[in-house]
Amino acid sequence: MIKVGIIGAGRIGKVHMTSISTRVKDAVIKTVADPFLNEETIAFAKSMGVEHTTKDYHEIINDPEIDAVLICSSTDTHSPISIEAIKAGKHVFCEKPIDHDVARIKEVMEALKGTGLKYQVGFNRRFDHNFEALQKAVADGKVGKPEIIKITSRDPEPPSPEYVKVSGGMFLDMTIHDFDMVRYLAGCDAEEIYVQSAVLVDPAIGQAGDVDTALITLKMANGALAMIDNSRKAVYGYDQRAEVFGSKGMVQTANDTESTMVFSGDQGIVAEKPLYFFLERYMESFSREVRLFVKAIEEDTDTPLGVMDGLKPVLMGIAAKKSVEEHRPVKLSEIKF
Amino acid sequence: MIKVGIIGAGRIGKVHMTSISTRVKDAVIKTVADPFLNEETIAFAKSMGVEHTTKDYHEIINDPEIDAVLICSSTDTHSPISIEAIKAGKHVFCEKPIDHDVARIKEVMEALKGTGLKYQVGFNRRFDHNFEALQKAVADGKVGKPEIIKITSRDPEPPSPEYVKVSGGMFLDMTIHDFDMVRYLAGCDAEEIYVQSAVLVDPAIGQAGDVDTALITLKMANGALAMIDNSRKAVYGYDQRAEVFGSKGMVQTANDTESTMVFSGDQGIVAEKPLYFFLERYMESFSREVRLFVKAIEEDTDTPLGVMDGLKPVLMGIAAKKSVEEHRPVKLSEIKF
Amino acid sequence: MIKVGIIGAGRIGKVHMTSISTRVKDAVIKTVADPFLNEETIAFAKSMGVEHTTKDYHEIINDPEIDAVLICSSTDTHSPISIEAIKAGKHVFCEKPIDHDVARIKEVMEALKGTGLKYQVGFNRRFDHNFEALQKAVADGKVGKPEIIKITSRDPEPPSPEYVKVSGGMFLDMTIHDFDMVRYLAGCDAEEIYVQSAVLVDPAIGQAGDVDTALITLKMANGALAMIDNSRKAVYGYDQRAEVFGSKGMVQTANDTESTMVFSGDQGIVAEKPLYFFLERYMESFSREVRLFVKAIEEDTDTPLGVMDGLKPVLMGIAAKKSVEEHRPVKLSEIKF
Amino acid sequence: MIKVGIIGAGRIGKVHMTSISTRVKDAVIKTVADPFLNEETIAFAKSMGVEHTTKDYHEIINDPEIDAVLICSSTDTHSPISIEAIKAGKHVFCEKPIDHDVARIKEVMEALKGTGLKYQVGFNRRFDHNFEALQKAVADGKVGKPEIIKITSRDPEPPSPEYVKVSGGMFLDMTIHDFDMVRYLAGCDAEEIYVQSAVLVDPAIGQAGDVDTALITLKMANGALAMIDNSRKAVYGYDQRAEVFGSKGMVQTANDTESTMVFSGDQGIVAEKPLYFFLERYMESFSREVRLFVKAIEEDTDTPLGVMDGLKPVLMGIAAKKSVEEHRPVKLSEIKF
Repeated sequence: MIKVGIIGAGRIGKVHMTSISTRVKDAVIKTVADPFLNEETIAFAKSMGVEHTTKDYHEIINDPEIDAVLICSSTDTHSPISIEAIKAGKHVFCEKPIDHDVARIKEVMEALKGTGLKYQVGFNRRFDHNFEALQKAVADGKVGKPEIIKITSRDPEPPSPEYVKVSGGMFLDMTIHDFDMVRYLAGCDAEEIYVQSAVLVDPAIGQAGDVDTALITLKMANGALAMIDNSRKAVYGYDQRAEVFGSKGMVQTANDTESTMVFSGDQGIVAEKPLYFFLERYMESFSREVRLFVKAIEEDTDTPLGVMDGLKPVLMGIAAKKSVEEHRPVKLSEIKF
Repeated sequence: MIKVGIIGAGRIGKVHMTSISTRVKDAVIKTVADPFLNEETIAFAKSMGVEHTTKDYHEIINDPEIDAVLICSSTDTHSPISIEAIKAGKHVFCEKPIDHDVARIKEVMEALKGTGLKYQVGFNRRFDHNFEALQKAVADGKVGKPEIIKITSRDPEPPSPEYVKVSGGMFLDMTIHDFDMVRYLAGCDAEEIYVQSAVLVDPAIGQAGDVDTALITLKMANGALAMIDNSRKAVYGYDQRAEVFGSKGMVQTANDTESTMVFSGDQGIVAEKPLYFFLERYMESFSREVRLFVKAIEEDTDTPLGVMDGLKPVLMGIAAKKSVEEHRPVKLSEIKF
Repeated sequence: MIKVGIIGAGRIGKVHMTSISTRVKDAVIKTVADPFLNEETIAFAKSMGVEHTTKDYHEIINDPEIDAVLICSSTDTHSPISIEAIKAGKHVFCEKPIDHDVARIKEVMEALKGTGLKYQVGFNRRFDHNFEALQKAVADGKVGKPEIIKITSRDPEPPSPEYVKVSGGMFLDMTIHDFDMVRYLAGCDAEEIYVQSAVLVDPAIGQAGDVDTALITLKMANGALAMIDNSRKAVYGYDQRAEVFGSKGMVQTANDTESTMVFSGDQGIVAEKPLYFFLERYMESFSREVRLFVKAIEEDTDTPLGVMDGLKPVLMGIAAKKSVEEHRPVKLSEIKF
Repeated sequence: MIKVGIIGAGRIGKVHMTSISTRVKDAVIKTVADPFLNEETIAFAKSMGVEHTTKDYHEIINDPEIDAVLICSSTDTHSPISIEAIKAGKHVFCEKPIDHDVARIKEVMEALKGTGLKYQVGFNRRFDHNFEALQKAVADGKVGKPEIIKITSRDPEPPSPEYVKVSGGMFLDMTIHDFDMVRYLAGCDAEEIYVQSAVLVDPAIGQAGDVDTALITLKMANGALAMIDNSRKAVYGYDQRAEVFGSKGMVQTANDTESTMVFSGDQGIVAEKPLYFFLERYMESFSREVRLFVKAIEEDTDTPLGVMDGLKPVLMGIAAKKSVEEHRPVKLSEIKF
């Protein structure tokens, strides 16, 4: 039984509390830490069987009984806490992104070297049933040589302008998942990125210095061309689809819905909208990623998503920003690392 | 080039005028006859390239230049005009049903004997792209031995109570197409019929002595069980589906739509309703059945749907009525022929 | 926290162990009893956090700490153990059917009278996301007055002839779920049943005195007509669909699949088969039914499915058998109770 | 009744012969001209009711009885024959593209000036039921302000390297239809184009100086971003889809199939492949475009697709080529006209 501590009890911290306490058999949460710990959070933690809560995450770092740490705090703390945890000999599961700053991700890599500790980054979508089926089909050669990869990723509601300002921008905040997905589906890295973007959803997002709509073209190392389309607002809900087209055929996924029910009425034939947002859509994937993290610790194998997998999408996000600024295709090799 | 005369210029007569003039290369319409011939009909016939129109169908029967007659008049005239036409040496395409009275259908059969003339009944749905694909799959053994056959057939609007009174009842008017379809899909005759029916759409239909909703269970000669569900009113439109389930799998058809467009909005994911009614849904099948009739004449082969195929669904309709009256399963062998 | 004992640790007993230990927060399993208890079962129970296992279910019945009993033993023991448990003051969750013998179900009803204890029957499909959405739509009036209800229920593999012999026959073993579903969707009881059945899947099933394929027509108390089609073997997998057609429209459910992935290749456009069988398809419903049972105990409200709901489908199964034997429609009022 | 002459009796010329003779009521083909006229073509023309055939297209140009000319000859002859026909006072329907050379298209525009003659370009896909429904929904404001437009256009088989050499390249030969489609759906012109392309299907296409796979990103004048993906070979057939996403929702079209039949077997749930290629997929659109051309003549209104609509996609194709050569986004304003 792996003992874990969770640092950060916000939305994603609570997701992991729920998931570990009900769906991860081989792990138990010993302590939850959050600087803004309040009654509600303490009650939530208790309902999930967590005995100990604290405002100071060092109680987790310094607890010799705790094997592994889940870092669910704000993005700017991901890399420093990662390093502290590694130094204290803890395995680390870190929410995405590790950092917006490549240099700080390199520090995490340095800290890990030679420790034998496990490190996993929270790109949960890889563990979604639909995307996993897609990747498996591609990896198994079902579509032959991949030629065109298309990812649609649209949110149901735009973030607040306040959030936008601290988010690192759409490419590092939202598209970063799609950057990981295109690497996952293609089975290789991107070599070049071109972005055509716009502010079409909310002018306030533009005023905050960001974009809210983008078409991102990529050239992958295996020769495949890839395309990501992003919007911060789809009125019909969270749109999460992918398609891989190759020499032997095409695989596609559709959105998940609450039920398969279809209503035929005088206005048309109506199916359900997609599941609302990431908590509804990807809940099962949050359990699966942690089960695999725990399994990697137990069996002393590589985690499915190491630091390099955390770094690459950040590099792609930086290249995407550069493409927008300089209005030209940008090679990944231009981004210093 | 086969010269045809069309007797009856109502809705279905006009369908055949349009279809023959534009989509049946080897046939030309010489004359159209209708006792209620008016300006509008004459103009319509002209626009379809028909030179000659008349109130007296004998002008068609007695015209030595005319090879074949399409009988599109009211149901009670189908069998007498069939016999007249046969006696005049014409090939006959007769709209369904040949007659509600089995004895009169037998007279048509008698008249045909030894003449070598072609006779075809207008069960057009056999020539619909969807049902034809289904039948072919079954006949080719794709589903193995058929075990369960299901036909859904629902109209978008109920007929008027006046029409209901002269229609012969739902089983001989509407279900008769489904009786033909189940024979077509199963590749054999029905042995037994049980009907559970009700008046749920319009009480006036009940007052006219008919039903408007029915579940019809059949036992087919090849051992398969079959089910037809009928309603005189589906608010979402003309619902025409079929499913054949067997030892090696299942084939199903869905409704046709005007386009494949789907709208995703804040109320759901909306596809189009089925094509409105039989004129929209089955137009192409009306051309195909006549092309096959013409071909049978040209090549001196059997028509795809002879008098026996016209008779069998009538027997099934009579058995269905008997099942309702006596509230029990009725064997087809009980219906005298 | 409700303490439960589980009697019977076969397939369905294990389902409830898994589900309660991981997905039912307010319940804990104290004891599992099974007369054929073996190492494997003991290990399984332990892995689910169950401390105590025994061969003698009386250890559960007689344990004053245990609030509720889940009866997952063989069908013939359902009613006697129900009565024992009730007499011992336990709430009871009983797997379907309560009994094949109506008189013994009545004994359970008698035993319950005046005790205030909760009793729930395991018709889990009511708690499936698809069927729940369908029922809700119907109950909310979305389809208007229900007119035609259709249920397709086909298993991926037939049972062994040995099982068939002790199963009570297809209607009480398999169709009983569909009988419950038609009551659930229609919101009322059935008044009349007619069955057309056959042995098409496996002659050995016929030799065991049962059928394996059936079309079951029902007349419901609200006037709607209903149809169930059953087969013991669908090569494409567990086929679980329903459709409710009414004066304002139609709702339908499709099968669930492992993922939404579709492969387009040179042989066609291929989607996934349905989830394999009831354990895969209905797992979530097994958790939901027990959560509702626990909630009914906690809040002292009626369970969603009482003894009467357990009885009615048995009466329908008996009527179905009678319909086959006497080859005629059978009124539910003919079945003595 | 409009009398037309058809110049060029190759594949597309035959399409128009068939379509006009059977599906365009107000037009009749007087003459068909083709320099390689042979027995087979003469027989085909006769079977379509065309009396006169010739090797010399001047017989059409100089025939005072002929109102309109359909130019279906090789691309390099489109603009000179257009000009000859205009000078002879004929209305012109010209297959796409008018010319690969912008200067020559301008000559056609000059020739037309002040003549009052009708000129239509054969971008038939605008008259396809699916794309027309999509455009109508967008134009009606159903999706709100368009934000992202996606077009998938993949052929079932690549052309021969010989054809590639004279085709003007993929952008002017194949993508030109998609360039027209994006203008049609967006309701405005493109401002900027970026192409990421590759040779992934057939190295011989690369050796012929062309590409066979491309992702084309566009910025439209109304602010929408657009994406076209092309492949010269999809093993599952002709893939022709589009999607328009906007502030109020999304509309999408799927491929057309021969029937709606779906087979459920032990290998999966299999639907039909798309209709094979443009002749199967777009046949009805070829009739509709000509009916609208004839109507524009009859009613003396603008054709739905004038010379400017023929020119714009050529400019886009030239910009696309430039984008590939210079590996950068290219503004349409850079292309001289």
